[in-house]
This record gives sequence, C-alpha cells and structure tokens, in this order.
Amino acid sequence: MAKEITNRSEDYSQWYIDIVKKANLADNSAVRGCMVIKPYGFGIWENMRDQLDRMFKDTGHVNAYFPLFIPKSFLSREAEHVEGFAKECAVVTHHRLMNAPDGSGVVVDPEAKLEEELIVRPTSETIIWHTYKDWINSYRDLPLLINQWANVVRWEMRTRLFLRTAEFLWQEGHTAHATRQEAEEETLKILDVYATFAEEYMAMPVIKGIKTANERFAGAEETYCIEALMQDGKALQAGTSHFLGQNFAKAFDVKFLNENNQEEYVWATSWGVSTRLMGGLIMTHSDDQGLVLPPKLAPTQVVIVPIPKPAPEIDEVAEKIMRELKDLGISVSYDTDMRKRPGFKFAEHEMRGIPVRLGIGKRDLEKGVVEVARRDTKEKASQPLEGIAAHVQQLLTDIQQNLFDRAAAFRAEKTVKVDSFDDFKAVLDQDIPGFISAHWDGTTETELKIKELTKATIRCIPLDAEEEEGKCILTGKPSSQRVLFAKAY
Amino acid sequence: MAKEITNRSEDYSQWYIDIVKKANLADNSAVRGCMVIKPYGFGIWENMRDQLDRMFKDTGHVNAYFPLFIPKSFLSREAEHVEGFAKECAVVTHHRLMNAPDGSGVVVDPEAKLEEELIVRPTSETIIWHTYKDWINSYRDLPLLINQWANVVRWEMRTRLFLRTAEFLWQEGHTAHATRQEAEEETLKILDVYATFAEEYMAMPVIKGIKTANERFAGAEETYCIEALMQDGKALQAGTSHFLGQNFAKAFDVKFLNENNQEEYVWATSWGVSTRLMGGLIMTHSDDQGLVLPPKLAPTQVVIVPIPKPAPEIDEVAEKIMRELKDLGISVSYDTDMRKRPGFKFAEHEMRGIPVRLGIGKRDLEKGVVEVARRDTKEKASQPLEGIAAHVQQLLTDIQQNLFDRAAAFRAEKTVKVDSFDDFKAVLDQDIPGFISAHWDGTTETELKIKELTKATIRCIPLDAEEEEGKCILTGKPSSQRVLFAKAY
Repeated sequence: MAKEITNRSEDYSQWYIDIVKKANLADNSAVRGCMVIKPYGFGIWENMRDQLDRMFKDTGHVNAYFPLFIPKSFLSREAEHVEGFAKECAVVTHHRLMNAPDGSGVVVDPEAKLEEELIVRPTSETIIWHTYKDWINSYRDLPLLINQWANVVRWEMRTRLFLRTAEFLWQEGHTAHATRQEAEEETLKILDVYATFAEEYMAMPVIKGIKTANERFAGAEETYCIEALMQDGKALQAGTSHFLGQNFAKAFDVKFLNENNQEEYVWATSWGVSTRLMGGLIMTHSDDQGLVLPPKLAPTQVVIVPIPKPAPEIDEVAEKIMRELKDLGISVSYDTDMRKRPGFKFAEHEMRGIPVRLGIGKRDLEKGVVEVARRDTKEKASQPLEGIAAHVQQLLTDIQQNLFDRAAAFRAEKTVKVDSFDDFKAVLDQDIPGFISAHWDGTTETELKIKELTKATIRCIPLDAEEEEGKCILTGKPSSQRVLFAKAY
Repeated sequence: MAKEITNRSEDYSQWYIDIVKKANLADNSAVRGCMVIKPYGFGIWENMRDQLDRMFKDTGHVNAYFPLFIPKSFLSREAEHVEGFAKECAVVTHHRLMNAPDGSGVVVDPEAKLEEELIVRPTSETIIWHTYKDWINSYRDLPLLINQWANVVRWEMRTRLFLRTAEFLWQEGHTAHATRQEAEEETLKILDVYATFAEEYMAMPVIKGIKTANERFAGAEETYCIEALMQDGKALQAGTSHFLGQNFAKAFDVKFLNENNQEEYVWATSWGVSTRLMGGLIMTHSDDQGLVLPPKLAPTQVVIVPIPKPAPEIDEVAEKIMRELKDLGISVSYDTDMRKRPGFKFAEHEMRGIPVRLGIGKRDLEKGVVEVARRDTKEKASQPLEGIAAHVQQLLTDIQQNLFDRAAAFRAEKTVKVDSFDDFKAVLDQDIPGFISAHWDGTTETELKIKELTKATIRCIPLDAEEEEGKCILTGKPSSQRVLFAKAY
C-alpha cells in the first residue's frame, strides 16, 4: 500500500493536514475558512461533547440557547470587548435577495437593508448579559449556571482545520453570581473540569495557569487556561475560563437586591472549549501511520478483521467476541468487506486510530488463539480466545494510561528552565522547542518584545508556580516567579 | 395564588404565549424574530433531540457538520430552491467593524466588503451537495446517510415563539443513493421515524401524507409530511421528508459510476424536524393550569413535595422513594424550598407540567400512605408507601398512553367528511374547526382559490387515503380521493 501521509519529521504541518483529511476527520469547504466536519471526525467530537456535557451537568450547570445574531450596538457596550472582536466578525446587513434588474443573476435587494447591522456571534457575553438583565432581580435568582453548545464565527485571516477556523463549534458557559468569591470559585471549578477532561479522557496532560494581562480575554478581569504541548514542541491553548468581575453586569446594567435589600452589580464568569480540542487530540498522540485515539473517545474501540476473509467458523467466533465486548460496554465492529485484503484493512484501521485490532484466522482458531494488535505501541501478540473480552477491556485501560504517560514524559523532557536570553533563544531554535520556564519582569512591554524577537509568548503563569527570586531573561529586572513560555498555535 | 395564564377559551394565542413564558420555555430576544430557549425549555428539546438522534442512528445514519454560510451563487444553482429561499434570508456582506471617523461609534468598515455575499443557511442542500461532489465517485461510496443538528435562519416577517422564528434549531438529513427506488424508500423510512417519534414520545397523533405540488419543498420532486391537530382545531406541519430526485445532483454535477461502469446522477432525499415540535407538544396537551408533558420527554418526571415543609421523617421517606425511582430510571426531584408553601409549589409544578407529584405529610406517613397527583387528569389519590415506586412507574406509562388517547379522540372528533363548499365553510367557521376530508380537483388553481376564500389549505393527501369517486367541493370537477384540509400554523 502506498504511503499515504507525510512523515512528521519531514513536515509537521503537512502531516497534520494529511491526518485530518485521510482519517476523514474534516475538510475545507467552499466558504473561506469554514470547515466541513466529516462523520468520523464528528463522531469523536460527539464523544468529547457528551462527556463534557455530563461533567457540566454534574457540577450543577444547565444548557440553554441564545440567538446567533448580536445587534452591533451591543458589542460596543463593553469597551475592551468590542476592541477584541470588531476586527474579525461577519456582519449581516440585508435580509433579502432579488433577481438583478439586468438579468445577471441573484443580488442583494438594496431595499432590504437592516436598520441595525447584526453580528454573527463571535462569543455571546453581550447578548446573554442583555438577557440576564430580565432574569435577575434578587439574590434568589442567583447563581445562574448556564452553558450553551453553539457555533461561533471569527473572521480569521489564516485558518487551519480544527485549530483556527472562521466558524467553529464550542460550548460557552456564562454564569452569574452574588459575590466575587463565588464567581472566582466557579472560574477555578471549571478550569478543573477542563483539566480533568483533557487528562482523563483526551489523555493530554495540561498545565493550569493564569494568562498575562496581554493575553487576557477581551472584557475579563482574569483569564485562566489549560495549556498542552504538541509533538512539534509548540503549545496549544486548550480551554479558557474567565473571571469577568462586574464588567458585563455594568455594561448591561444587571443588578440584584442582596439579602440586605441593597442593590449590587452581579459577578460573572465565562468559559469555553471548542473543536480546537480535536487538533490537540491529533497532535498529542498520532503518528506517521495515522490517527491514534485514546480508547475513551474512540467511536470504535475494537475492530475485528477476518483473515484472509469472512468464513462461517470465523464469523461465529467474531460474533461471540462482539457480544462479549458489547456487554462490557465496548464499541466494536467486524470488518467483513470482501473487496479488501487484510493488509489494506490493517492500514485503514491504523489510519483511523482504532485502539485495538483483533485478527482471526483459521489456523489461529485451531490453536484457540486470536492476534491482538494495539494501535499505540503497534505491538502484536497471540492471545487465548478464552477470556479475550476481559483481556481487551484491560488492554483499553492500559492504552488510555500509556497514551497519557507517553505524552507526560514527552512534556517533561521538553520543559526546561532557562536563565539567560541566549539559552532561551537556543531552546527555541531547536527542531522541537517545548515549554520554557523562565523569569519575566511582569511588564507587557517585555512580553511583546520577547514575542517580537523570538515568536515565543507567555503561555501562562502556572497555578502551581513557586516563589523564586530571579531576574527577567530579557531586561534583568527582578522577578519573583517563573512563567511558561513557548511558541504556540 | 393569582391566575397566571389566560384561559384557552378566551384567547388561545395569548394562552400559548403565556405558557411558553410562564413555564420558562423560551422568550423573545433583542434580535427581531430570534428567541432565547430557556434552560427548562431546552431540557425538553434535549430529550427530543437525543431520542430522535438514537432513532436516526438505529436506522444507519451518522452525524456531520457543514458550514453556517452558503455562497450566494450556490442558492441560484437550483432554480426552484432560490425562488423559495431568496426572499427571506440573512445576508453577510462585510467581515469587519471599525470606529466611525466622526467618533459616533462602531460602524461597518466599507473596505471589508466580501467578494461574494454569504447567506446564513436557511437549509443546507446546496452547500452539502457541493460537498458531496467530492465525496461520491462510485456506487461503493453510496448510500451516504448523513444528518446534521444545526441552527438555520429564515427571515420571517411574522414570528411566534417555537412555531415560526427567524432562527431555529433543527436536524436536517441529507442522503445520497444509487437508485430512485432506494431514495424513495429512505424518504418513507424517515417519515415513519418521524411519525413513531411524534406518537410514541410526544404522544401526538399524526397523519402521514403527501404535500400538493403547491406546498412542496423548493427543489423537491415529492414532499411527505406528518400533520398534527392542535387543540384550537388548527393543523401543524410537524415534520417533512423530501424525495429530491436528481435535482440537486444535476445542479451540483454529482455523478457516480454504477456497477456497470456507467455514469449516473445521484438520487437524493432531505428531511427535517425543528424546535417547532416544541410548539406542537405544548398545543397538543397543555391546559389552563400550564404545561402538560408526556412522561417520556419530561426533564423531571416526578416531584416530591414535603407537607407543609421538610422535616427529618419526611426527608427520610422522600430520599428512599427517590432512590427507588432512580433505580427504575425515573427522574425525580425533591422540592425542599423553605420559602414557599405547598399550594404555591403545586401550582408551580403544574405550570411546568411535571407528570406526577407526590405529597408527603406527617399524618399520611402515620397511615403509611402518600398522596399521588397526576398532572394530565388532575386526579389525586392516597397510595400505600409500600410499592410506591412500581406504582409510579405504571402511572407514568398510563399517563403517556392517556395523553395520546386523549389527543387521538380529540382529532377523531374534529375530523369530518364534507361534500359541499357551504358545509366546508361552516366547519371552518366553528370555534374549533379541525381537519376536513374533502374532494379536490387536483389543480393548484383550485387549491389557491379555496385558500383565498377560507384560509384553509390542503395539509396533505393522506398516505392511507382510499380511492373514492367524488366531486371537487369548489369546482364540482371529478376527483378520485379525498384530501385533508385545515387552517394551519
């Protein structure tokens, strides 16, 4: 079988695009920057979404749905917010098409101009806080713990499937609280949900941290994030949780009567993860043979391949194994396609990242064994038919753990402490740079200068950073803790 | 407690709006014609969506996601399609805002005009068939059985919460087949899924039928539908399944090589149901006390109210009942709010349509009983604590069935055969008109004339209509079967 995808060592970006396309995850569409998420890719996203949704509900959140459109004037209410989003938004100006008077086709009807332009939501703080004004009167109405699964649009100039697209799917939580403390706790609670999801389901280790003022969400008092390290040594911001203070409550005049009958502005948070996580999943685990999926998110966890093709005695065993696996809650399929040879099928299932493959041949059956191949290590072994379902169940657990351990070991190897700007640049010049833990003087000026000189940005101030006296790698000014730098997606 | 909602007999439209708002289902938003779906309403929609999604998957369909935007030129490719949707669509013309030079605020940046305008999808046939061109080459690529859950926008002038909104949520299936027969079978298979869902889950009886040419989907060869009858005697189109023939394959040049290595155009279907179903659910079952929900779709199926308020011995029993109900897969909540009296709580839970209420008072406990109230009939009864969970489980089944039977009886009562135009008008002049089964000469001209004279439209030609010689009620011309007329939403 012809080599289908570029090697990572040759061209990581091309490898990524090859995986996304050849594993049937997504494709570009006829609309600039917008993607089509194909059924297989969408199946993985559904698993991620459903698990996150359970975790949000387990922490007391409910779902709702707010309008796609935001009146232009709403964006302007919060000064930093409009600054952050006005430059890249899709604007609806008309509500009708007509046949061109000259017969040249269909054109916008100039008489169907909207009184006020509508923005396709880039994020929903403004329309939601406008709504909350009607919903919140008293402390009895609080907290509001609402999430929405939706599509949003940001008119990005440079797009990349899943990682940065003009339209993407996400969830956005928008909560309202009576006190600063409660809102801050919510912000951190969600950060923990995101970190748990990333590590336990995606098998993707993450650093929890705080963004610098410069990287903060437009309109937030504090932005918390989880940051992951991709195989090419670049960081990926995988989720953010914002403490919004009273900024949006003030912008939309949302007050409540507290228990002492006094009016106060409401405290807010917002938080989101998106289809960008699909990019993180791919770039954390996959290899030169294709996608590698953690078992907990794989739409198909086990595939059975008859060798060399279906036959009554093989089908019988396969069906028995399928029943046993399904009883254990394991998703399994039996590849009965007569037109393809086993080797071709193996390559296909590797490309799709199916965690475990069972090969069943007649000679194996005579010996009472099947061949078990794991996708993560590519190890193969003969395994007794007796007890095969329990073996596969344990193997899926092992694979999930191994993927996490491997990614954690990679990150540990690629995280270095650096104390001079020369060393800093030397690390960034490596093929696979990674995270750099270094001192910084705390100013936006220095942060931007370092970015200009090296393209590296401060990913976060880790929540578990220890106090340590040191000097800024660029300016030599005093610093009390290290921050995490990296080149990033 | 003050009467919260208008009586149906006084003003059905106002009653509907009152229910939607007081039961916290949805509300109008700041954007004309767009609604906010509130958490309780969204919880019901989630149950509907999840059940439909299971039924689509059980019939071999998979989900995917296609872009929100459609290039203007795509709409024009299918002549009838553009005719049907161009007059009411949201058009994106620019991709950036800027600060007005005169300091008057944020305005559209005239330099950020798109080369080609984008339409916010009113339905996705065009963008999807453009994509299918890349996915389909041979008969081996067929069938494609793909569904999408998405928001769509149709710039309706007169909107009504859930029933007709500028933005709504729906699913749209888009399938591609090698033969006409297979596509026709798919169209009918989905119609059956819709009918089963409506009747078994929503407890809403529906008539399966074919739309007349005049009411056909723009671009379809045949449109099938399910039609339900609301309490005010008006019909609601609750779902449609379209046989698209080769129209979109021809418009987007989608051909495949058949088994004989000959090129053919692909055959297509599309089908959808939307948040409009929420309106149908409300108007089929609810009453002057508020929402009535079929147990299979109720977010909370049972509520327990301590009388007059929580106390250790009541809490203990309530928690035991909750455990037993949860073990049976029944969703239950315990209303421990100390600030509200039982009577107020009863009214609230009635408003929200919770199917079963259990009242637990100390005196009841001494007798070893609890009070069981069902929402549909408002009957109350003392019931032994022993075996209460099994009793409630059976009661939920009974309520589900009773709601269906009640609605079916109403429809039977309100479906009449009519053989003259005078009788036809007389039925339509009643307070609650209903379905009219009558002969029609088969022409669009007559159909439109009847609509003009009476506001009644042909809802469908029922699939189970028997051949019967007769004369058109308007023109007296010969007709071979009755069709179903009604005023409609």
